Amino acid sequence: MTIINSDIDFHSLFYPRNIVFIGASPVPGKWGFVIPANIIRGNYEGRFYPVNPNYSTLFGMPCYPSLSAIQGEVDLVVVTVPANHVPAIIDECISKRVKSIVVITSDFSETGSEGALLEKEIASKTKAHGINLVGPNTMGIFNAYGRLNILMPYIKADPGHVSIVSQSGNVGTQIMGECSKNGIGISKVISSGNEANIKCEDYISYLAEDDTTKIIALYIESFKDGQKILNICRKLKAVKPIIVYKSGKTHGGKLAAASHTGAMAGSIEIYRSVFKQCGIIEADSTEEMIDIIGGFLALPLPRGNRVGILTIGGGWGVIAADECETHGFILPQLSDDIFNKLNEFLPKYWSRRNPVDMAAFLSMDAFPKAMESMASWDGVDSVLSLGSGVSTYNFFDYTDLIDKFGLKKEEVEFVLQKISAYMQKRGESLSKLMNKYNKPVLHVESGGEDDAYRNMREYNHVVFRSPERAVKVLKKMYDFYKIRERMNKA
Amino acid sequence: MTIINSDIDFHSLFYPRNIVFIGASPVPGKWGFVIPANIIRGNYEGRFYPVNPNYSTLFGMPCYPSLSAIQGEVDLVVVTVPANHVPAIIDECISKRVKSIVVITSDFSETGSEGALLEKEIASKTKAHGINLVGPNTMGIFNAYGRLNILMPYIKADPGHVSIVSQSGNVGTQIMGECSKNGIGISKVISSGNEANIKCEDYISYLAEDDTTKIIALYIESFKDGQKILNICRKLKAVKPIIVYKSGKTHGGKLAAASHTGAMAGSIEIYRSVFKQCGIIEADSTEEMIDIIGGFLALPLPRGNRVGILTIGGGWGVIAADECETHGFILPQLSDDIFNKLNEFLPKYWSRRNPVDMAAFLSMDAFPKAMESMASWDGVDSVLSLGSGVSTYNFFDYTDLIDKFGLKKEEVEFVLQKISAYMQKRGESLSKLMNKYNKPVLHVESGGEDDAYRNMREYNHVVFRSPERAVKVLKKMYDFYKIRERMNKA
Repeated sequence: MTIINSDIDFHSLFYPRNIVFIGASPVPGKWGFVIPANIIRGNYEGRFYPVNPNYSTLFGMPCYPSLSAIQGEVDLVVVTVPANHVPAIIDECISKRVKSIVVITSDFSETGSEGALLEKEIASKTKAHGINLVGPNTMGIFNAYGRLNILMPYIKADPGHVSIVSQSGNVGTQIMGECSKNGIGISKVISSGNEANIKCEDYISYLAEDDTTKIIALYIESFKDGQKILNICRKLKAVKPIIVYKSGKTHGGKLAAASHTGAMAGSIEIYRSVFKQCGIIEADSTEEMIDIIGGFLALPLPRGNRVGILTIGGGWGVIAADECETHGFILPQLSDDIFNKLNEFLPKYWSRRNPVDMAAFLSMDAFPKAMESMASWDGVDSVLSLGSGVSTYNFFDYTDLIDKFGLKKEEVEFVLQKISAYMQKRGESLSKLMNKYNKPVLHVESGGEDDAYRNMREYNHVVFRSPERAVKVLKKMYDFYKIRERMNKA
Repeated sequence: MTIINSDIDFHSLFYPRNIVFIGASPVPGKWGFVIPANIIRGNYEGRFYPVNPNYSTLFGMPCYPSLSAIQGEVDLVVVTVPANHVPAIIDECISKRVKSIVVITSDFSETGSEGALLEKEIASKTKAHGINLVGPNTMGIFNAYGRLNILMPYIKADPGHVSIVSQSGNVGTQIMGECSKNGIGISKVISSGNEANIKCEDYISYLAEDDTTKIIALYIESFKDGQKILNICRKLKAVKPIIVYKSGKTHGGKLAAASHTGAMAGSIEIYRSVFKQCGIIEADSTEEMIDIIGGFLALPLPRGNRVGILTIGGGWGVIAADECETHGFILPQLSDDIFNKLNEFLPKYWSRRNPVDMAAFLSMDAFPKAMESMASWDGVDSVLSLGSGVSTYNFFDYTDLIDKFGLKKEEVEFVLQKISAYMQKRGESLSKLMNKYNKPVLHVESGGEDDAYRNMREYNHVVFRSPERAVKVLKKMYDFYKIRERMNKA
């Protein structure tokens, strides 16, 4: 799919045949050590050349006195030397016909007019010679499919379908880390830095066409070229969700942004109107961004605003009902058909309305049966499923009481196996339900440990940590659905 | 301290000398098994009597045919038998002069007029005989200081100073579980159920006087007696923070609440005006409640709206600046004095303004020094400290590279030990800073694993998971400070 014609050779940037690192260091506390360690730990498969005139070997491999001393073509150069040394290296890159340069070094336009001049110099030189310049003041790039990890923090990720473009390296790598923590795989990560040449708009246009990228996550302080974003999004027609966290919303935030990446952030109202036209989804916090990504990866889009709620505890039902109404969703009354279905196997004291409160009824069969009834109900477009999972996983582990209570070991083990089997197939059966009825089922568990959330992801399902967070994601997905409909009609 | 004279004997409820459990069961999937397991696992030190006419032993101890068959005085009876059997048990309790009854059983006023009649019957009988009635439709009570765990889910907590009163057992135990997960100890937990006799207002008045309770956390759908709450709070003068999550805010939420605990929730505006008069802090989500509790436990109150921000990454600074301004805080410009102090040891490319962005400067000394400068600055009332901690804990663990890179094992170990020592004392030194300058320092780390957050709690410090969450807590604490000032002037 060709959406935007770009003259930037991104392929050589993300899939370089070799990497030269200028400013390599044997000292474990220096970036000149940390970043090569990431490259090597990331199992980069191309050739890696550390450069430092003071060493003949580094990291257990040959070390080179300069870029020029390296034989053959060079695809990618990474630089961490002080800012005033960077122009000379750019000159070397030009003679060497290097394809891309990642300038990690700070102290360019973000620190004032002197740095701005220096930045202009390296920008125009690289541009004139068709060299990709990432940064300066970037925290690097990552590509799981090229085994490329040129990032500052020590961070890993499994290959997946989320790509991140961030005007803050810290926030970008934080989003990457939170994705990993939640079992969400990554395709590419770009810390765009000061964007002297390549702008986040350019990275987005590349990712829009990148087959391994299904969701684009953005942290931005400012767009330099809003029109370009509009063009990309109009052509993309909301096929790939783009989720943005926009900062620099307030006066104080804008001032901070100016000294961070030199960004001149415009009014948030203008940004929001662009987002709306583009079908870009705005996350209200960095955490919500992870929730939204999780939702888009696992769930079909809701095609209406009617929600059915199934809960194991009444309080969660009340909280979810509040959130639904606050976000414009409605909770239809149960149809006679669904009421009768549920009434067959639920205890006498069930709520008898939507939210369907099972009132702490303990039955391994009732929850899946109730879930299927709710999902099958054509009176709702989405289903919220609250409780009865992650946190109850060890609920019936009575192994410690076998001797004390005179329990039968086999019986305790049998129950545990049964629960474990139930849990194993729960993610799968929820996914099946969603496919069968083509509507999202948002599952919420509170109080689980991190690994329990990761485990659910293995079944290609998502678990939200509170009803409030689940409903907020549903709202964003419904907004996206409406925008996609509009864009594809237009 | 006597705030409210109450005729309810709460002591015998929370420190019972013995417990009788009616409806005990040998089947691990039944509540009649689960709750006794919790009581026994909780190391209850009084005498425990299971009752079930079909067994002579249960849980490896003598089982009794009935309450009447038990010799001597009984303090506390717990009931899980079906609703229609409860009145007869109440009669037995009356003859036996039992002090308190916890009715776990559902199917009372929350399911309709029939249940409401039954509830009225047990309420008036117990009231007439001065018996404490908890519930019905409660998930039980917990008191770490009485080694009392009569809760439905299998959940534990270390002794501490947070007490929880909840009109939803699930939400209450979820808050309890989240506190434990974050290393926050618990004093008491009460699932107040349908509140046939004892209302959440009564529990609050008890906790207001309870010495082991320093913070009261509430989940409510409705207060039955708002005037009582006003009276308690007026006398309490905001000495103990009361943090509430109020649900049933919308029409749909109110309907759900009615079928949950039979609550008739009034308008949220009226509640908010009561909260404001009372100095009760409203949390916007169950997760925010945990954040706020963590803040109140570890931090002094901010005495003004001026905030200093120290960050290791620019993006977090921008996000925090936005949140501060959105919540009415201001970021003063650095004084010459503080500027010069920082400029001495920060790298040339630091932001030179508030937020103070260290721009990924790696130095074990710089962060604590900068932190002390910011805390000492009399131009701010609070300090936000972003990054450089939990998530970098394993940042320099190069153990895996010792052979590959030809590193010296001793050197790698030395660095790890140094970082570990730094981390160990960091919580302590932040606490010291706060005491020295008597202002809150809110530390934020994103992307850490759960245990890293718990570890910080061991140093009596709190770590927030995002700048957004930290600033929201600061706002609530500052609101509380202003209310306390007003209440103590009045």
